[in-house]
Amino acid sequence: MEGHHIELTPVGTVESALTDSASAPKQGDEGAPDAWLAFEPAVGAALDGLRPGDEILVLTWLHLADRDVLRVHPRGDATRPETGVFSTRSPDRPNPIGLHRVEVATVESTRVRVRGLEAVDGTPVVDVKPVLSGDAGER
Amino acid sequence: MEGHHIELTPVGTVESALTDSASAPKQGDEGAPDAWLAFEPAVGAALDGLRPGDEILVLTWLHLADRDVLRVHPRGDATRPETGVFSTRSPDRPNPIGLHRVEVATVESTRVRVRGLEAVDGTPVVDVKPVLSGDAGER
Repeated sequence: MEGHHIELTPVGTVESALTDSASAPKQGDEGAPDAWLAFEPAVGAALDGLRPGDEILVLTWLHLADRDVLRVHPRGDATRPETGVFSTRSPDRPNPIGLHRVEVATVESTRVRVRGLEAVDGTPVVDVKPVLSGDAGER
Repeated sequence: MEGHHIELTPVGTVESALTDSASAPKQGDEGAPDAWLAFEPAVGAALDGLRPGDEILVLTWLHLADRDVLRVHPRGDATRPETGVFSTRSPDRPNPIGLHRVEVATVESTRVRVRGLEAVDGTPVVDVKPVLSGDAGER
């Protein structure tokens, strides 16, 4: 690895009924519950313009992940051959940044309710971005 | 901001003809050049399974960004009203993580050539993920 390091500062925290990563759905469209994103008051201005119905990408820090894992069985299925983590969405990877596409349900000051978030309670939020059409197949 | 911090470790570096962030395209589909991702040998196993033609999300650390910016004119256009950075793709934001959707052109050991990357030469790479259909509108 390179010698220099980069410091992320959490901008908020996930508040969710999901507390057990083992039973959490692997993707948000696989039955994940709605959740609150509780942002730090210091970044409140960054939320200006966010509205119910917006489709956003929430970037989290998957704090329970194992950063030493480089190869996995996809989706934890031992019958599937091991592959490098960069070809999977495994949370275990050198920099476990979670990427979650969700819809905004409610915005209450610095608290944002989102639909179908597969992150467990207490997961740090590090960034939020609007979805662009170029993010998936229709570019 | 919260008291705890998170340390990212670069897993590679962008090698690109783009050297000036001011003239760089704002999105990869706006005329960005092909580029090399030069990965650290220590994470080589994480690349196993990556093949030409794969559509991937490259996560970078936008090291030239201003982390104190919370509101911007979208796309730097002063005629557009200021909005919170979480509703824009501005590189200036509290945690300037770049999200780039690109196609893999070539894999040569720990060097991966990708098409249309809008990051400047020397940008740290922090993660690579496969594109899922749920990442944009077709979920």
